[in-house]
Amino acid sequence: MTREIFLKLIQAREFKAVQSVLNVMNPVDIAALLEDLEGTDLALAFRLIPKDRAAETFSEMRPSRQACLVERFTDTELKALLDALFLDDTVDLLEELPANLVTRILAAVDKDKRAQINTLLGYPEDSAGSIMTTEYVRLKPDMTVVQAIDQIRKTGIHKQTIYTCYVLEARQLVGIVSAKDLLTADDAVRVGDIMTRRIVSVNTTADREDVAKLLSKYGFLALPVLDAQGYMVGIVTIDDAVDVLEAETTEDLSIMAAVNPSEKPYFESSVWDHAKNRIVWLLVLMFSAIATGSILTYYENAFQAIPLLVSFVPMLMDTGGNCGSQSSTLIIRGLALEEIRLTDIFRVMFKELRIALLVGFTLAAANGLRILITYRSVKMAFVIALSLMATVIISKLIGCTLPLLAKKVRLDPAIMAAPLITTLVDTCSVMIYFAIATRVFGL
Amino acid sequence: MTREIFLKLIQAREFKAVQSVLNVMNPVDIAALLEDLEGTDLALAFRLIPKDRAAETFSEMRPSRQACLVERFTDTELKALLDALFLDDTVDLLEELPANLVTRILAAVDKDKRAQINTLLGYPEDSAGSIMTTEYVRLKPDMTVVQAIDQIRKTGIHKQTIYTCYVLEARQLVGIVSAKDLLTADDAVRVGDIMTRRIVSVNTTADREDVAKLLSKYGFLALPVLDAQGYMVGIVTIDDAVDVLEAETTEDLSIMAAVNPSEKPYFESSVWDHAKNRIVWLLVLMFSAIATGSILTYYENAFQAIPLLVSFVPMLMDTGGNCGSQSSTLIIRGLALEEIRLTDIFRVMFKELRIALLVGFTLAAANGLRILITYRSVKMAFVIALSLMATVIISKLIGCTLPLLAKKVRLDPAIMAAPLITTLVDTCSVMIYFAIATRVFGL
Repeated sequence: MTREIFLKLIQAREFKAVQSVLNVMNPVDIAALLEDLEGTDLALAFRLIPKDRAAETFSEMRPSRQACLVERFTDTELKALLDALFLDDTVDLLEELPANLVTRILAAVDKDKRAQINTLLGYPEDSAGSIMTTEYVRLKPDMTVVQAIDQIRKTGIHKQTIYTCYVLEARQLVGIVSAKDLLTADDAVRVGDIMTRRIVSVNTTADREDVAKLLSKYGFLALPVLDAQGYMVGIVTIDDAVDVLEAETTEDLSIMAAVNPSEKPYFESSVWDHAKNRIVWLLVLMFSAIATGSILTYYENAFQAIPLLVSFVPMLMDTGGNCGSQSSTLIIRGLALEEIRLTDIFRVMFKELRIALLVGFTLAAANGLRILITYRSVKMAFVIALSLMATVIISKLIGCTLPLLAKKVRLDPAIMAAPLITTLVDTCSVMIYFAIATRVFGL
Repeated sequence: MTREIFLKLIQAREFKAVQSVLNVMNPVDIAALLEDLEGTDLALAFRLIPKDRAAETFSEMRPSRQACLVERFTDTELKALLDALFLDDTVDLLEELPANLVTRILAAVDKDKRAQINTLLGYPEDSAGSIMTTEYVRLKPDMTVVQAIDQIRKTGIHKQTIYTCYVLEARQLVGIVSAKDLLTADDAVRVGDIMTRRIVSVNTTADREDVAKLLSKYGFLALPVLDAQGYMVGIVTIDDAVDVLEAETTEDLSIMAAVNPSEKPYFESSVWDHAKNRIVWLLVLMFSAIATGSILTYYENAFQAIPLLVSFVPMLMDTGGNCGSQSSTLIIRGLALEEIRLTDIFRVMFKELRIALLVGFTLAAANGLRILITYRSVKMAFVIALSLMATVIISKLIGCTLPLLAKKVRLDPAIMAAPLITTLVDTCSVMIYFAIATRVFGL
């Protein structure tokens, strides 16, 4: 079903056809199909979604579409939606909506749920508390397997996941049992006897990225969240963790390209926002590059005497920048994946040094040879080869140490990526180059 | 437990203590703890892992550690391990082990399993077939809920996931039902009546990255895999999908930094491998940068007359490179997240053009003013401001279109990242700069 055809069906008020189309679709796809609809058309289409998929479709929509719908809902419709929405999706919604709609929503939910929502809204952004849900299956250690399954049956339909159940004693988490363990155990066995006591949990204030990484590392479907007193308050589920990992990758990539990260998709951000997110770093880097320029000015006499010298500057600058960003990117990624630790700094430097020797030698030989053939100048070939060698070594060492040092002083290693490394390495490479050239040519 | 203390316990043959330590640990953590052990120590420690966690620990270990263990296992131990390992983990193992150990393993599994393993090994690398498992819960549409749950109980313990069950008729997938649906439905209801017929499936030859993205997009725990005839042959589970997404992010980042991607962690690759993965692109980019150099040579007279001109070259080159890589990174990421489509090319260009005008104006004003103050030359300020403006516009347009064009001709957009964009933009910016300068100064 293309969006165009669907739009025409809606505008022609062909409700039967629209309903048939929506009937065979998944919530995620319905949300995508409704992206382009506006105002009344959107509200009409939404009312035709099968009841069992309406809430999930809603939670998959963009904030602007959600706001548009909430504005048009009757009080009854709003209440039905909120009853069907998972608590963490409701909280996500509230964080994006304008204040007048937030008030309307908080008025529509019952007192108990409102209290839970307010607690969730109170957790700091990017914390485990902000992405967790309070809807999970609670069991007791002395329940039998039959009683436990019965408990899942009775309450499970309202829970986000029933596949990991939490065994509590006086609000303290004492064990975890999976639905698989329950289903494959004998009826009379007690939960306390099959639950695992090896609990991996996080605190409400833990960074959401660390939580997501923990979930992915252990291959869990959900992770319990404890408050400062050690009481269990919620769970973070794998689907939310996957979203967090994706968002964090986007953030890292933005930082690595010298762009202030934004949570919004490309087209959702205005031209003004895009410009604002890019200008600061460009200004910083532009003014830093002046340093390299002044080195060139300093060696004015050298390139006045041998103008050819200038023509190798871009090649040296680019090679230095590329070598540096190769190293820094691999180290930044290694740190993110926890394959490289802060204590590995000397191991990393030694490895990069040996790589730089190999790479530097190859580049120096290739370019030296080319210059020997093109310009028939042994001196020039020697200067370029030596400068390349030195540039590669310096830039690889800068590229590998700076992300580690950034991490050491608790900065995001991602800022030590291509743009900053290139600017730093430029200065070094030009300095080395002219130092060698003036000496060899006796300028 | 630090690795050092654990190593000492093993070397002192304190088996009781080692066992107590391992008893309270998760498989993932045990695998990490055993990382540094060698030979007999490793085999000894492995034998002390509680039986219910040995297989999972094994599948979390690095290939070199796995090989070391397989070499030391008795035939009985090997058979016990293979019986407990999930099929997809066994296949992963076989793909990494040396040939003599592969033969030993294939001899140890029964005929039936060997046939399945050989089928899985036959799927192309990076395909859905290569990451799927054939162990899933099969139901029939006319089963009642009680019968279905019973089926899960009987066979579920050997399945990788029981939470998504597949309803088959004559090997054709006709519906999907979750364990949650089964547990929250009435006993006598038939599976056919509660299963969903809205099936999202993939083919065995589908790209594993697309499969992982599909799983994450729909928030599923598993995705069915069909063969060319439409018969269901396996499932891909969320934990494997998360690993794939992580590996693909690493691959993209490597490509974006002009490094040939490698599946191995940083320290697992030899110096030689690292160098090999980096040299090719460095050579290509180094020789491309010669073009920029020759433009400088072409304008030799200009900077002989006004040497100051040269000192602005690094600043212009860097700014162009940074602007270009900002745009290309955001577009590459947008394409990966499917927020930007190929058909959006003109929308993207128009947006980037407006961003470039804003950014370019700011940079030009800031630097023009600086030059006016420092050098008191209106002409020079004008030349630099105009060159900056033009460089920003050109580099943003190159940066945003090249990833889209790469995608169009079915190349990985990630190769159009900072290094290549910088090299291309360098040439343009230097050309523009000297064209403007020679005209303004009448050189």
